[in-house]
Amino acid sequence: MNILEIISKKRDKKALNKEEIEYFIEEYTKGNITDYQAAALVMAIFINGMDYEETKNLTIAMAHSGETLDLSDISDTIIDKHSSGGVGDKITLIVMPIVATFGIPVAKMSGRGLGITGGTIDKLESIPGYRTDISLEEFKNNIKEIGISLIGQTKDLAPADKKIYALRDTIACTESIPLIASSIMSKKIAAGANKIILEVTYGKGAFMKTEEDAIKLSKIMSKIGELAGIETVCVITNMNQPIGKNVGNSLEIEEAVRALKGDMEEDVKEIVFHITALIMKMANLGDNLEENKKKIIENIENGKAYKKFVELVAKQGGDTKYLENIERAKYIVEVKAEKEGYVQDLNAETIGKSAIALGAGRMKKEDTIDHTAGIVLSKKIGDKVLNGETLAYIHTNKENFEDVTKEILTAYKIGKEKPEEYKHISKTI
Amino acid sequence: MNILEIISKKRDKKALNKEEIEYFIEEYTKGNITDYQAAALVMAIFINGMDYEETKNLTIAMAHSGETLDLSDISDTIIDKHSSGGVGDKITLIVMPIVATFGIPVAKMSGRGLGITGGTIDKLESIPGYRTDISLEEFKNNIKEIGISLIGQTKDLAPADKKIYALRDTIACTESIPLIASSIMSKKIAAGANKIILEVTYGKGAFMKTEEDAIKLSKIMSKIGELAGIETVCVITNMNQPIGKNVGNSLEIEEAVRALKGDMEEDVKEIVFHITALIMKMANLGDNLEENKKKIIENIENGKAYKKFVELVAKQGGDTKYLENIERAKYIVEVKAEKEGYVQDLNAETIGKSAIALGAGRMKKEDTIDHTAGIVLSKKIGDKVLNGETLAYIHTNKENFEDVTKEILTAYKIGKEKPEEYKHISKTI
Repeated sequence: MNILEIISKKRDKKALNKEEIEYFIEEYTKGNITDYQAAALVMAIFINGMDYEETKNLTIAMAHSGETLDLSDISDTIIDKHSSGGVGDKITLIVMPIVATFGIPVAKMSGRGLGITGGTIDKLESIPGYRTDISLEEFKNNIKEIGISLIGQTKDLAPADKKIYALRDTIACTESIPLIASSIMSKKIAAGANKIILEVTYGKGAFMKTEEDAIKLSKIMSKIGELAGIETVCVITNMNQPIGKNVGNSLEIEEAVRALKGDMEEDVKEIVFHITALIMKMANLGDNLEENKKKIIENIENGKAYKKFVELVAKQGGDTKYLENIERAKYIVEVKAEKEGYVQDLNAETIGKSAIALGAGRMKKEDTIDHTAGIVLSKKIGDKVLNGETLAYIHTNKENFEDVTKEILTAYKIGKEKPEEYKHISKTI
Repeated sequence: MNILEIISKKRDKKALNKEEIEYFIEEYTKGNITDYQAAALVMAIFINGMDYEETKNLTIAMAHSGETLDLSDISDTIIDKHSSGGVGDKITLIVMPIVATFGIPVAKMSGRGLGITGGTIDKLESIPGYRTDISLEEFKNNIKEIGISLIGQTKDLAPADKKIYALRDTIACTESIPLIASSIMSKKIAAGANKIILEVTYGKGAFMKTEEDAIKLSKIMSKIGELAGIETVCVITNMNQPIGKNVGNSLEIEEAVRALKGDMEEDVKEIVFHITALIMKMANLGDNLEENKKKIIENIENGKAYKKFVELVAKQGGDTKYLENIERAKYIVEVKAEKEGYVQDLNAETIGKSAIALGAGRMKKEDTIDHTAGIVLSKKIGDKVLNGETLAYIHTNKENFEDVTKEILTAYKIGKEKPEEYKHISKTI
C-alpha cells in the first residue's frame, strides 16, 4: 500500500477501504505523508465524496490517532453534547449544569470561537479565575466529585483531526459533509463518549446555510454513530437569528445565569428543555420527554441547576461572587428603530460580525477578545416595534461605534406584516 | 484575488479566467502559494478538467514564468520537434540533422529518460565529450554557425512547469490531458519556438495507453497552439512495440548513425520521412510531402545528413571518431525463440523495463545509467521465427541476466497466424 495508490483511488471516485484510510491517518499523523499529498487526497474527497462506511472508518481512525480518554470507571453512560455553532448560542452552558443535577456525568470539552460563531471556552474564561486548561486527571476527578467538568480541547486527543482541520482551512475544503461529520465525531469518540447529542445549526449565523444541508449532515453523523456503535441524536436548530437576547462572552454568561435561575427567553427555553429531556432519555431516566421537562422545571425552581453551575465554576477556580456582579463594558449604547412595524428578519450573520467588530470575537486565531463587548437584542423576529424604540444595546469599550450601530440597523428588517412564526427547532434525527 | 477563491472555483467545476491562472502561476513560482495549496488546485484540475481557453492561459503563464529564449534574430521560422516518449525512440536524433541540411535552424532542447521511456539527452551523453549543458549563448551561437544545436533543458526556462511537473508526480496527477498538454507546450514556447511538431505516442511503451487518448491530447495541443498563434502539427505514432531495432543509449546512437547513412529500419524510415517532410512544409520549403521525401533521400545519399550530425557532435565537444567505433557492453547474449511461428506481439513496456533492469535507464532521478546496456531486437511484429532462432540480443555489463532473458521472452507473443500489418503512424492532426 502506498499513498499514490490511495490518492489515485479517490481521484477516480472509488471507495477507500479501512486499511487504506488507517494507513493515511497513521502516516500523515507521523509526518510520513506530506501536507501536499494530504491536500490532494482531501480535495479528491471533497469533490468525489465518501460513503457511510468510509466516513465511519475515517472517524474511527482519527479518533484513535492519539490519546483516548477512558471514562468507563465513572459511568457506563458518557454523553457528550456538541453544537455546530452559532451566534448567541449559550445552550451548552445552560443544559450541562441541569443535566448534572440528575446525576448524569458531564465530561465536556469545548472549542473556542472562530469567525462569527462564539465558543463556550471563551465564554467561561470571562469568569475571573476559571481554568479551562486543567489536566485530564483533574478533569476526571472533578467529574467524579461534583459530576461535571467543562474544559477546552486538549491537543493530545485526535491529533489527525487537528492536522486535517487546519489543512482544510487553507485549501478551501471546509464545507465537505463527510469531513465535517468525521471531524466532529472523532473528537467525541476520542474524549470517551458512548452517546452523543448534536445541536446541528443552520441558517445565516451557522456554517450550514440551509436546513437541507443540516439534515444531510445529521443523517450522516447518525449513520456514522450507528456504524461505530455510538447512540447519536441530532437536534436541528434554526440559526437565522441569534439565540436568546445576549451576544458576547460575559453577556452570555449573564444570560446563562439568569436562565439557570429560571428566567429564560422563549427560544432558549424551547431548545434547552428539548435537548436536556433527550439527554435524560438517552441516560435511561425516562422515555417521556414531557415528564422529563417537568423534572427539569423542578430542578431549576428548587435552585439545584444554578447551584450546580456555581459548584462547577468554584471547582475550576472561578470567582463565584462574580456571577452575581458581572462586569460591564464602559459604553452601553442604544440602537433605535427608524420606522414602525414588525421585525421580519434579524440577520444572525450581521449581528455576529458586529459583535466581532466590537471586540467580542476573533477573525484570526491570534486575536484577543474583549469579554465585556457584545450586543443585547431587545427585539427579535415577530416583535412589534415603534419608531424610535430601542432595538438593541451595544456594549463596547471602543469610542467609535457609529459604524456598528449602522450595521446592526441593517440586520433588522422591519415591515408592516407580522411574519410567520419563527421555528426554533427544525427536527430531531 | 486570493488562492482560496481560485481553488474553490475549480473545486466547484467553474472555469478559471486568465488573471486567476496568471496569479496562481506567478505566486506559486515565487513561493507565496504553498505546495499543499497547489496540490489541492492541481487535483481539482485533474478531476474537473480545464477547457481550451484555460489550458491555453495556463500554457502561456507557465511559458512566461521564467526566462524566455528569443531566436528571432536567427530566423523567422523556429520549429521545435517534441516526442511524448517511447522505447527505442531515436527519431529526433535522425530527423534533426536531416532538417538542418535544408537550412532550417534546429534549436532543440531535450529531456532525460524517466521510467521506461528513453531521453535524447542521455543518448547524446553516451558520446564521449558531448556537452548537453552549454550556455544559452553558446546554444544560439552554434545554431548561427552550423544551423543546429541539441542541448538539455535549462532550469531557467518555464520554472513553474518544473515545479508543477514534480508536484504532479508525488500526488498521482500525471495523467491529466490539460496538464500534460500545457507542460509540453509551455516549454516549447519558452524556448522560442513559433512552429511546433509533436510526435504523440500511444500504446504499451508510451504514457498514453490508447490511440483515442493520443488523439484527444493532440487535438488539445493543436487548439492551444492555434489560440497562442503557434502553428502546431501532431503526428500520432504507435508505441506498442519499440521503434527500430536498438533500445539503449549508445545502441540507439549506433542505429541513428546507420540511419543517417541511409540504412534505416522500415518503421524508423516511415516516421522519419513523414516528420521531416512535414517540417519542410512548415518551413515553406514545399507543400508536397512526396517531393520533400525525394529531397530527403538526396541529402542522405549525398552524405549531407550524416555530415551534419558529425558537425553537431564536434561543435558540442563530442568525440567524432567514437561514432565509427561505438563502445559495446561486456556481454552480448542471445534470447532464443522457444517455438516456431509469427511474432504477433512485442510488448514495448516489457522491453523498456528489461532495458532498465540491464542498466539502460533510471527509475529514480538520481540513478546513473550504463550507456552501453540495452537490447537489440532481431525480430519484430509480423516476422517469421523458427524454433531456437534469435529473437533479440541482450547487451549488458551485469553477470546475472537470466531473469531479463526470461522477461524478454514474455514480451514476444509467437503464434501460428501472421498478424495484421502493424501500423506505425496513426494520423497527422
